[in-house]
Amino acid sequence: MPETSAGSSPIHRIIADLYERLRHEHAGEVATYIPELGKADPNWFAICLVTADGAVYEAGDTAQTFTIQSISKPFNYGIALEDKGMAQVLEKIWMEPSGEAFNSISLQPGSGRPVNPMINAGAIATTSLVRGETAEAKIARILEVFSRYAGRRLEIDQTVYRSESETGHRNRAIGHMLRNFSILTEDPTPTLEAYFMQCSVLVHCRDLAVMAATLANGGVNPLTGERALGGDHVENVLSVMGSCGMYDAAGEWIYQVGIPAKSGVAGGILAVLPGQLGIGVFSPRLNANGNSVRGIAVCRELSQRFNLHLFNSGHPALSVIRRISSARQDCSKRVRSPGEQAILQQEGGRIRHLHLQGELHFTTAERVLRETLREAADADHLLLNLRHVAFADPVALDLLARLAATLAAAGKTLTLSGGAFLPALENTCRGVLPPAALAVVDFVPDYELALENLENRVVARCSRPGWDTRLLRLEEGELFAGLDPASLAVVEGLCTRHDFAPGETLVAAGSSDRSLFFILRGSADVWIEPPGAPRLRVASLSAGTALGEMALLDASPRSATVLAHTRTECVALTAETFARLETEHPAVALALLRNLALLLARRLRKANTEITAAHAA
Amino acid sequence: MPETSAGSSPIHRIIADLYERLRHEHAGEVATYIPELGKADPNWFAICLVTADGAVYEAGDTAQTFTIQSISKPFNYGIALEDKGMAQVLEKIWMEPSGEAFNSISLQPGSGRPVNPMINAGAIATTSLVRGETAEAKIARILEVFSRYAGRRLEIDQTVYRSESETGHRNRAIGHMLRNFSILTEDPTPTLEAYFMQCSVLVHCRDLAVMAATLANGGVNPLTGERALGGDHVENVLSVMGSCGMYDAAGEWIYQVGIPAKSGVAGGILAVLPGQLGIGVFSPRLNANGNSVRGIAVCRELSQRFNLHLFNSGHPALSVIRRISSARQDCSKRVRSPGEQAILQQEGGRIRHLHLQGELHFTTAERVLRETLREAADADHLLLNLRHVAFADPVALDLLARLAATLAAAGKTLTLSGGAFLPALENTCRGVLPPAALAVVDFVPDYELALENLENRVVARCSRPGWDTRLLRLEEGELFAGLDPASLAVVEGLCTRHDFAPGETLVAAGSSDRSLFFILRGSADVWIEPPGAPRLRVASLSAGTALGEMALLDASPRSATVLAHTRTECVALTAETFARLETEHPAVALALLRNLALLLARRLRKANTEITAAHAA
Repeated sequence: MPETSAGSSPIHRIIADLYERLRHEHAGEVATYIPELGKADPNWFAICLVTADGAVYEAGDTAQTFTIQSISKPFNYGIALEDKGMAQVLEKIWMEPSGEAFNSISLQPGSGRPVNPMINAGAIATTSLVRGETAEAKIARILEVFSRYAGRRLEIDQTVYRSESETGHRNRAIGHMLRNFSILTEDPTPTLEAYFMQCSVLVHCRDLAVMAATLANGGVNPLTGERALGGDHVENVLSVMGSCGMYDAAGEWIYQVGIPAKSGVAGGILAVLPGQLGIGVFSPRLNANGNSVRGIAVCRELSQRFNLHLFNSGHPALSVIRRISSARQDCSKRVRSPGEQAILQQEGGRIRHLHLQGELHFTTAERVLRETLREAADADHLLLNLRHVAFADPVALDLLARLAATLAAAGKTLTLSGGAFLPALENTCRGVLPPAALAVVDFVPDYELALENLENRVVARCSRPGWDTRLLRLEEGELFAGLDPASLAVVEGLCTRHDFAPGETLVAAGSSDRSLFFILRGSADVWIEPPGAPRLRVASLSAGTALGEMALLDASPRSATVLAHTRTECVALTAETFARLETEHPAVALALLRNLALLLARRLRKANTEITAAHAA
Repeated sequence: MPETSAGSSPIHRIIADLYERLRHEHAGEVATYIPELGKADPNWFAICLVTADGAVYEAGDTAQTFTIQSISKPFNYGIALEDKGMAQVLEKIWMEPSGEAFNSISLQPGSGRPVNPMINAGAIATTSLVRGETAEAKIARILEVFSRYAGRRLEIDQTVYRSESETGHRNRAIGHMLRNFSILTEDPTPTLEAYFMQCSVLVHCRDLAVMAATLANGGVNPLTGERALGGDHVENVLSVMGSCGMYDAAGEWIYQVGIPAKSGVAGGILAVLPGQLGIGVFSPRLNANGNSVRGIAVCRELSQRFNLHLFNSGHPALSVIRRISSARQDCSKRVRSPGEQAILQQEGGRIRHLHLQGELHFTTAERVLRETLREAADADHLLLNLRHVAFADPVALDLLARLAATLAAAGKTLTLSGGAFLPALENTCRGVLPPAALAVVDFVPDYELALENLENRVVARCSRPGWDTRLLRLEEGELFAGLDPASLAVVEGLCTRHDFAPGETLVAAGSSDRSLFFILRGSADVWIEPPGAPRLRVASLSAGTALGEMALLDASPRSATVLAHTRTECVALTAETFARLETEHPAVALALLRNLALLLARRLRKANTEITAAHAA
């Protein structure tokens, strides 16, 4: 495999094939309305596609520079929105398609307001709104922003600029007409010169694709990570491209390509599929509308070949819920006594957990709310696992907060666990929920712990008071089940008693201590430290369970750390003592070993059930 | 919780609040251009949102009927596309926004072709293309399709129809003008009458939302499951709505709402968010453009409140790959001998598995290709788990097939496993791939089996010839490790020999047979039958492993079935024999039990590692 995976990808091959096929298309004429444009080689041709996360696929003359021309208009519109705000921009420039050609004057009757920012009149008005009193100040601002979009320092083609400026009589007329209507409030000359310069910015095809991908990525250049446009304005820029971007062929473009785009008379086309990718094409031969002939063909074929039409989208809500389960089938890592197990088998259905994945926005969040409310109909505790949620917008966070309120009002609890979005969700809830609702919403980063807490609540509700504080007798544990009183007395005589404070270490990972512990009261947690990852709680142990059993089986060092969770009282049996037991009371040792093997077998069966559930879900 | 979860949902609350707030908006005038429309109660108001999978949220007078008017136009356009095909439709009606009012004539100079199907001229030309020679035949076809969109039998308001027909002088003029230009080739009267009837179809707000949701759902009514429009034409219908749906405010609509929509002069607005949801609003007071004032406000607020603008989408490619792993960290359920384990620890990195989730289309498939090729740089075998892929479009299937070809050319293998899309993917691959590539692509429904097969290939490559066919000696197994020759002789004397043909049963689930088996040659699979689910292979066992160990520990019936995979030779030790061993040779029994507990403990540790990996991934 070559170093750059994109180069060896089948997608690269498809784009190279498209390039090869359309290379033989020679229809259209190079623009000549300013002499410099006429010097372009009509055979130049380049295609580039950049994904919203920065993968680049390209074919042809992708580094051949040309002037950006009208493709500057939407980017400049974004600058005007940032420099002056939407209200002031809309006061000066409206956003309806004109149904007329790019150089039509198209001012609204009465106000003289240009109908949209993609015709020259609207674009000149846009440039007047860019920060800066002089042409130099404006173009400096424009170049700085355009360069952030492209991810490299862009420059002006001075020859083209002079040519634009010398022959731009129509645009000068438009400028003075705008001054006449007070759309421009100062001498139009600095704005017009900045406009001519802005059209003369040199870009190559790859720049166009990166600029498009920056818009697709919410305004952040995916290659440099630099922000070029505030995220709020991206939809405004794409909207004017979508309705007015392709001169008087905007409707045809939506119909046949369905991706917001902008073309320039030097032969560039830039297209943006929001959230997904950007496309740049360059080929100087234009059709009668002033759009690149090959550029249109490339966009149309890519849209069809890759099914990119924006109105032809998939089924985003289908997979947001990966799995719905209850604590009856799917329980925490807490090793429970037989009595607790029986309660959870009976009552675990009162806890429902929903495992979410993917992106949360209105449509997917709607589905989460719907399914959670459906589960809530016969449950008390709802647990949402957000660990695999890659993205959640503020709408989704707000809806989840409202879900919590609805559940609280119905006497249910909601626990939200896992995921990078948990702190934001907690903030939203604290902002939105009344105290009574907040009291029954829990935010627990560790999903396992959240589930265990809910199980504990169900167990506590179904148990006699004091179930979790009583000191057990030895024979109540699985390890000592079936031992007759004489054998129990033998074992008890060999054991030592221990009392651990909360947080105290029962077992330290790596140590060569060799004792088996049996918890008589309290509980303890098992922690591992995976290499390069934070400490992870892998099990919790209640009174009645054994731990450190490997001590009796082999001499390997401790594999995990066990810490007392509450005050924890245990008995311990060392490997040496057990060896004595084997010699002196082999029947007792056999019974203990058999019990040990049995509880390991049961834990293994539970673990295998959990693995099977996880894989089959 | 009430029965219908949507009714108790916070989303219902938000929509009810919006309704309550906008109820006090009284701007605009009821249309009076035909007398019947003027009789509408100006206070009528209804909002309905239906998701692409059929959840309904509504507020206000959602069952109040009114005439569909211009909202019929896009649906009729879909019928024309189905009845005559796109080429013939485009020859008669173009698709550019007119920039003019809804009743402008807007024919293209020369051809007389209406500029788009949303203005009256274009809509009348559309009706002429609907199947049927007479007005009755055409309207029957139209009513039948409209009813499928709405999911109930729709009818015509005869009074409104007569009023439309009696006062429709302008539309009659348009009809004759179209005849003059040969856009209509017959007497315009039947087409005009069908057009007047089509505008007089009675719908209510909920109908509009269901019709919109049907378009959002690719042409299939989500409540009835009935198809109303061929999926290929949905994007065409939405395109003309997107560019020309809101009369002369199309640009403003895209800018401020960003959802393809269509309005009618009776006060209805219908909006479609492709793949996600449909919106219907009804309120008869119109603004100067002929659009419902409250309707616009509702759509604008819903778009902003729920972040629905089509150009403001999320990050669809982020979460398509849930986890990438290798057979070193994440191995199959095969219980392996220590030698095999060592090989996989060393060489498991040659197998990489990628676990996919969500929807596969160009953008997400691109990411899958990119990451798979990146992993392939230092691996031999690539395994894609498609089990959690909810949807894959033909583009994604084609790209995966091309990925297989690329990997084959680089000397790698690709295994595709799991998922409802595997058969479609296999078909695509068989259609696209050369035989040499097909030879190294495997389609394995069971992901676990796929992984095990790949592990076997790696183990086989790294082992001496015959590694998997040699008859083991007893002391080579973990169960008998550390036994001295005398003890081994004792055990061997107590065991019986068994020889199973492929497929033969070693252990039957539910049986009370109590033997422990130890495999000396061959391999066997462990199967469970979950209630209500197909039989599931949960483990496979190589020579050197023990099975049925619970027989020595308790008297419970067998929990799973074990079938010989190849010819399998075993020794067996019954519970009765083991009891004799405990009495006669307690030291040997203790050593066996200790080994058994040890191997259970090791399997448990492996299982826990796998669970931790699955949760932490």
